[in-house]
Amino acid sequence: MTLPDIFFRLASRADLPSIVRMLADDDLGSQRERYEDPLPEAYYSAFGQIDSDPNHELIVAERNGEVIGTLHLMFLPSVSFQGGRRAQIESVRVDKRFQSQGIGSEMMKWSMERARQRGAHVVQLTTHKTRLDAQRFYERLGFKGSHLGMKFSLK
Amino acid sequence: MTLPDIFFRLASRADLPSIVRMLADDDLGSQRERYEDPLPEAYYSAFGQIDSDPNHELIVAERNGEVIGTLHLMFLPSVSFQGGRRAQIESVRVDKRFQSQGIGSEMMKWSMERARQRGAHVVQLTTHKTRLDAQRFYERLGFKGSHLGMKFSLK
Repeated sequence: MTLPDIFFRLASRADLPSIVRMLADDDLGSQRERYEDPLPEAYYSAFGQIDSDPNHELIVAERNGEVIGTLHLMFLPSVSFQGGRRAQIESVRVDKRFQSQGIGSEMMKWSMERARQRGAHVVQLTTHKTRLDAQRFYERLGFKGSHLGMKFSLK
Repeated sequence: MTLPDIFFRLASRADLPSIVRMLADDDLGSQRERYEDPLPEAYYSAFGQIDSDPNHELIVAERNGEVIGTLHLMFLPSVSFQGGRRAQIESVRVDKRFQSQGIGSEMMKWSMERARQRGAHVVQLTTHKTRLDAQRFYERLGFKGSHLGMKFSLK
């Protein structure tokens, strides 16, 4: 689970403040997260559900002992595609202080390889239409923007 | 779990041939499914994984004892959105013989209510950019096409 000076591992409960800080430190994320001390209990509850489910892997990227990135890799069983397993990536963030250093790219390549190892036939993600930099980033990694991502808010 | 003359329930193993028939009976689906008798074992294996996971609900719509529609509703724990649970819908199909009768709309409304009951804050799905009718259908139900859905094939 290593790459030149970046180390990938499953997140622990103690990583949650770092993860939420990165989720919140973002134009869209700042409107929906609560990075407080202590963190709202709902984050720990969600972490417990993720951590106890082998189809979910909340990943952190570490460098020199510091968490510098995160993503949530999930494996979705499906009847479609001849019962093929999908990998889905959500909640991708690189610490703003360390962006544009290729860390996000290493995180994605690691995740795509992990998805391949676990037998997924596809890696899927959605990105907000306003995140044009993110779209170009994923295209450079080989992702095709073939789908429209639609949401219905229940709140 | 009833609506005027349509009944919704969790799919059983015995429903798989009907489900795969509907998945395959479609421009895109015909290229990727194998509707054969007997069905390839991979479909049953995937069904087993879905059926044993409480975060996955493979649903069939039934009318007069006949399966006329299917969708896969999944609940995804997430750290994002203050640890908010997402609902995701995949593999939506209505039997071609019974399309344009409002069945798909009833299936979606049932699923959105189910997602609300199970505490999801959002229902999300992606639809291929070429499925313009599907996009209009989801927009009529209140979905917003705010995201780009990107895929990377591992095959």
